[in-house]
Amino acid sequence: MTAVTDRSSKAQAAVPQVDTAYLGEKLLGRWKDLRLIARGFAQDPRIIRDPLLPMEEHRERVLEQLKILATEAQVLRAFPERLGGKDDSGGGIAGFEELILADPSLQIKAGVQWGLFCAAIHHLGTPEQQDRLLGQAMRLEVPGAFAMTEIGHGSDVASVATTATYDETTKDFVLNTPFRAAWKDYLGNAAKHGQAAVVFAQLITKGVNHGVHAFYVPIRETNKDGSAGKLLPGIQSEDDGLKGGLNGIDNGRLAFDNIRVPRINLLARYGEVSEEGVYSSPIESPGRRFFTMLGSLVQGRVSLDGAAGVASKIALKTAITYSNQRRQFNGASDTEETVIMDYQTHQRRLLPLLAEVYAGHYAHDRLLDLFHAVFSEEGMDTPESREDLETLAATLKPTSTWRALHALQTAREACGGAGFMAENRLVQLRQDLDIYVTFEGDNTVLLQLVGKRLLTDYAKQFKGITGMNMARFVVDRAADTVMYKTPLNRAVQSIADTGMKRRSAMELREEETQRELLTERVETMVEELAAALRPASKMSQAEGAELFNEHQQELIEAAKAHADLVQWEAFTKAIKEIDDPGTHSVLVALRDLYALTRIEANLAWYLINGRLSSQRAETVTSYINRLLRKLRPHAQDLIDAFGIEGPLVRATIETGVEATRQDEARDYYRKQRASGNAPVSEKALARNSKKKK
Amino acid sequence: MTAVTDRSSKAQAAVPQVDTAYLGEKLLGRWKDLRLIARGFAQDPRIIRDPLLPMEEHRERVLEQLKILATEAQVLRAFPERLGGKDDSGGGIAGFEELILADPSLQIKAGVQWGLFCAAIHHLGTPEQQDRLLGQAMRLEVPGAFAMTEIGHGSDVASVATTATYDETTKDFVLNTPFRAAWKDYLGNAAKHGQAAVVFAQLITKGVNHGVHAFYVPIRETNKDGSAGKLLPGIQSEDDGLKGGLNGIDNGRLAFDNIRVPRINLLARYGEVSEEGVYSSPIESPGRRFFTMLGSLVQGRVSLDGAAGVASKIALKTAITYSNQRRQFNGASDTEETVIMDYQTHQRRLLPLLAEVYAGHYAHDRLLDLFHAVFSEEGMDTPESREDLETLAATLKPTSTWRALHALQTAREACGGAGFMAENRLVQLRQDLDIYVTFEGDNTVLLQLVGKRLLTDYAKQFKGITGMNMARFVVDRAADTVMYKTPLNRAVQSIADTGMKRRSAMELREEETQRELLTERVETMVEELAAALRPASKMSQAEGAELFNEHQQELIEAAKAHADLVQWEAFTKAIKEIDDPGTHSVLVALRDLYALTRIEANLAWYLINGRLSSQRAETVTSYINRLLRKLRPHAQDLIDAFGIEGPLVRATIETGVEATRQDEARDYYRKQRASGNAPVSEKALARNSKKKK
Repeated sequence: MTAVTDRSSKAQAAVPQVDTAYLGEKLLGRWKDLRLIARGFAQDPRIIRDPLLPMEEHRERVLEQLKILATEAQVLRAFPERLGGKDDSGGGIAGFEELILADPSLQIKAGVQWGLFCAAIHHLGTPEQQDRLLGQAMRLEVPGAFAMTEIGHGSDVASVATTATYDETTKDFVLNTPFRAAWKDYLGNAAKHGQAAVVFAQLITKGVNHGVHAFYVPIRETNKDGSAGKLLPGIQSEDDGLKGGLNGIDNGRLAFDNIRVPRINLLARYGEVSEEGVYSSPIESPGRRFFTMLGSLVQGRVSLDGAAGVASKIALKTAITYSNQRRQFNGASDTEETVIMDYQTHQRRLLPLLAEVYAGHYAHDRLLDLFHAVFSEEGMDTPESREDLETLAATLKPTSTWRALHALQTAREACGGAGFMAENRLVQLRQDLDIYVTFEGDNTVLLQLVGKRLLTDYAKQFKGITGMNMARFVVDRAADTVMYKTPLNRAVQSIADTGMKRRSAMELREEETQRELLTERVETMVEELAAALRPASKMSQAEGAELFNEHQQELIEAAKAHADLVQWEAFTKAIKEIDDPGTHSVLVALRDLYALTRIEANLAWYLINGRLSSQRAETVTSYINRLLRKLRPHAQDLIDAFGIEGPLVRATIETGVEATRQDEARDYYRKQRASGNAPVSEKALARNSKKKK
Repeated sequence: MTAVTDRSSKAQAAVPQVDTAYLGEKLLGRWKDLRLIARGFAQDPRIIRDPLLPMEEHRERVLEQLKILATEAQVLRAFPERLGGKDDSGGGIAGFEELILADPSLQIKAGVQWGLFCAAIHHLGTPEQQDRLLGQAMRLEVPGAFAMTEIGHGSDVASVATTATYDETTKDFVLNTPFRAAWKDYLGNAAKHGQAAVVFAQLITKGVNHGVHAFYVPIRETNKDGSAGKLLPGIQSEDDGLKGGLNGIDNGRLAFDNIRVPRINLLARYGEVSEEGVYSSPIESPGRRFFTMLGSLVQGRVSLDGAAGVASKIALKTAITYSNQRRQFNGASDTEETVIMDYQTHQRRLLPLLAEVYAGHYAHDRLLDLFHAVFSEEGMDTPESREDLETLAATLKPTSTWRALHALQTAREACGGAGFMAENRLVQLRQDLDIYVTFEGDNTVLLQLVGKRLLTDYAKQFKGITGMNMARFVVDRAADTVMYKTPLNRAVQSIADTGMKRRSAMELREEETQRELLTERVETMVEELAAALRPASKMSQAEGAELFNEHQQELIEAAKAHADLVQWEAFTKAIKEIDDPGTHSVLVALRDLYALTRIEANLAWYLINGRLSSQRAETVTSYINRLLRKLRPHAQDLIDAFGIEGPLVRATIETGVEATRQDEARDYYRKQRASGNAPVSEKALARNSKKKK
């Protein structure tokens, strides 16, 4: 066995080789040009983050950067052509998510303006409202806040307490914040720059509350230079101040003291009020109406999934590059220290994450395709495709955002003290990304939605079963399973088929084995969950909720298992499109590593449920170790293929300084030895004198 | 089954109850008075952190705070009485670790000054050197840097490249930084405030390198006001600049261009050089000498273990208090939303962590006892007790520092967007604590040391076995097992004894079952590892290193298993000293939760190794869920018992604002209903009209 000690010995590793240029093209994918344009901006000195800027300066700089983007970049692609857009939803997101390379604050402030504020006008407004309000918002003449979340209600948007009561006498809505908990909070653009807001409030007319609707509300005067002036009468604002990250955004709170907005400022696509105060909506069910309105804002989750993936790539690019240069301890040789990437523990920390990042990348491609289809392709915007899209976004956004935090932290630790220095960027990126796991849908809450969807699908498959009435606890929607097309009713059969013996004879490296193991886990978990929840239909509301609560963790575990499978399927599908044999072979090993580490993480489940024998389970870890050795020579190529290089990474330790320093040190010692003046070590003397004795 | 909905229903939970005052006293422990004094300072407006301060101002403020501590607090207790100390090592650390409550930057800067710089003079210096150098350092007249780590060598201190060559003609040492990688880096006090440094360098005299020794080196002039002036000739310094956290400390780099320090500045307790340049040391073996010198600096790890525990307590205090007030979604009732602490997922996130924090607290108490015994009790400073202390510190420091990051992040996410606000302190604490996992011994490297120690102990037990020669790969030290006194040679027997059948009949809640399960895991893993590494003795150095590398992950897993057991034993021992029956009963459940979650985390191992049957393994999770329900009503009491309250926590959401806001909202709706003007919901109308039809 030859230890591969560094990249220079890559040639020894022989075939297969990754064709990084070829793979890089493939990875750029469908919206390659827009991604490359965005990456160009992400290297523009006007656009990149200055890591030393204090909060106030950082905020102002990011606002100026947004103005540059508004005029020079492709940030308006998703909007209607008649207003200067391209009706290109997927392309818009693809470019947008790359902006995280410049500065997450820039990405999220752009997201607030175009992905939330403008998108709400676009998707919740009528054509007339788009014409009237969208252009100025798109051009950033009106920076806006997206006023949904309240102090008292984050994940539970349906319960926001702000009211918008229609006044028939004056023909306008009265917006009011009835108590402190109803203040809108954490809103980008609310503390300083916002001149308007899309405000979500309970629409009340003729004594009836028609649920949450969105209203276009001017909040600040416009100064002569176009900047935000003082607050309009009846509007209060507070600054959220310093946050854990994203301090280039002026998050803040808003409250409304019975302010009035004209009737036509109710964004009326899914519900309008006539001059006489009569409410009407194209969607009869208030519940479905609410979810449709919220669902049209799914792009936030889609883009966060992509942006989080980019952040993970920066993390691994930095850590793998450094670890391929850094040496520490001389276990294998007296003269040369070991490259830390050669240590098993180091491979264990970084390579499974690399596999996950690939899996996440390919899954995100599919998400983006689906998103583009729903919002920009003719005839694809159906309730079913929307629900699939929402479920897939709810599956992937938690996975990739938690993964980004994990990748950034792992990379930071793998780089030791150097990883903690702001100049190496990992720590600030992690600080900025932290909030990604709870905003735009708290990850835990999103996974519960996914779990409930899995249950609904399951229930649909077994419609005949008596006593199945989970509707009260499960979101009232039904559609086909999303990404993996194994019919859920196959579950029962597959459990009967597969016993310990058959599986133990199968090879874990076989694609079909991996698919079965990952699929069966989702199916079995959902099936068991459905059975456990069945008694809820005969219970009181409180008892049913309690029963549901007792299985909440399992619901989340099922959703996570679903996420594993979805990503594995996307990875596997993508590999089939790789023609280059060397690249293909390495990617298969990487996909295997993804599958095996997911199975290893849930090994007890596979053992308890008789899906893997003890003997076979024991081989999972040793097989992973073999894959680590196999993939290690390709780690640099695999991370390089993403094309995120030097000026996009902006980490000193990623530039080769470590290798340069080592060359200098090596040179020093070589000259010292040659001079004959090198000191002898006391240890060596002691050894020699022992030998003499 | 009654759902306990909030603290007010605590009475319904009935017996047992935690006596928080009683438990609080117990938890303060042996150095209660010193801890309370430190907590007093941690509430002093002069001492607490200003979260908004930019780096430069933060650095200056922390220096001023150190001056206050030097004159008013008990920071000098660990030092010799003749120099103004109290020879009270344990007490010194106990007070010191509480300082994290004020500001981690303050704690670590204090640690640099008194725990590293002064401690090196104290422990590595002769009495004469202590008399000459320690007083001014203790009084902060000479702020100092601890110059050990180099850019090129972090964990591998033995390989630092700075040289200190004795010049017989001038009778002094020439200190030199031969190349860039040999610059000292990440040193607190190096960028600005340091006036001297303890520099670790290869001691060379008469052409022989005697290994790493410490030298006292003045680095900056002293200004008239006592502050640091310009750098002395031959000294270079660079500022590390902004870091991921701890920005109240002026970390920086130092380099030495053949500067000269007098012979008597070699800290000479473990090695000295005569005027004639003859080296002598009380410790013959260079390896043992090196480890003895480094070992005397163990207090850094001891105190980080304690400080990390305090940080975890702040995190859980904030999250549990908020989660006991915060309500979201009304699953169980139409009128009242559910307290989020009642959600199973929320309990799953917070309560096992609470159990871990208790386990870590009690383990730290034992570590501190051992530390105090070695350094401040007559006759306890033996090579064996030192090695035990070092192993225990290397076991607990990684565990508690990683736990602190996990606790802070979990708490931050459990508090949603509020958790991300600097005013709630979790994010800044996490930023500061990040570096704790890689400084003062990288966690992964420390766990490898622990693993090697376990192997050495094992080898000692089986001395007779042929071919056991791991000395080349295992630290060359041997002593008894540290905390758990199960002789390791029992391992073979216990494996034969315990099969699936016997274990499945046992109750997981029995103390003996838990002990056996946790103990057997360590013993079996070590035994298997030893067997796997046996062939190394017949291999070349490179092959042996490769074999060792292939089992590196297992080595770390064994060390983690050891950490689980050590903490479980400490927890179990502590419970036996609790007289109050209610408190005792709750703590037993908490200890059970600790044991069961550790077992659950490694469930596959127990299954594969036949230690738990599938049937029994399945009950682990359901038993954990039962414990969560049982412990949930006591969560607040258990976290309150640590006595870390309001002014020590300094998080807005921990002050009851959430409950106040909810009262206000409840009151609003109550009045609205009473007025008869409350709007009817469209949903309710639809339901009613359906009923009518």
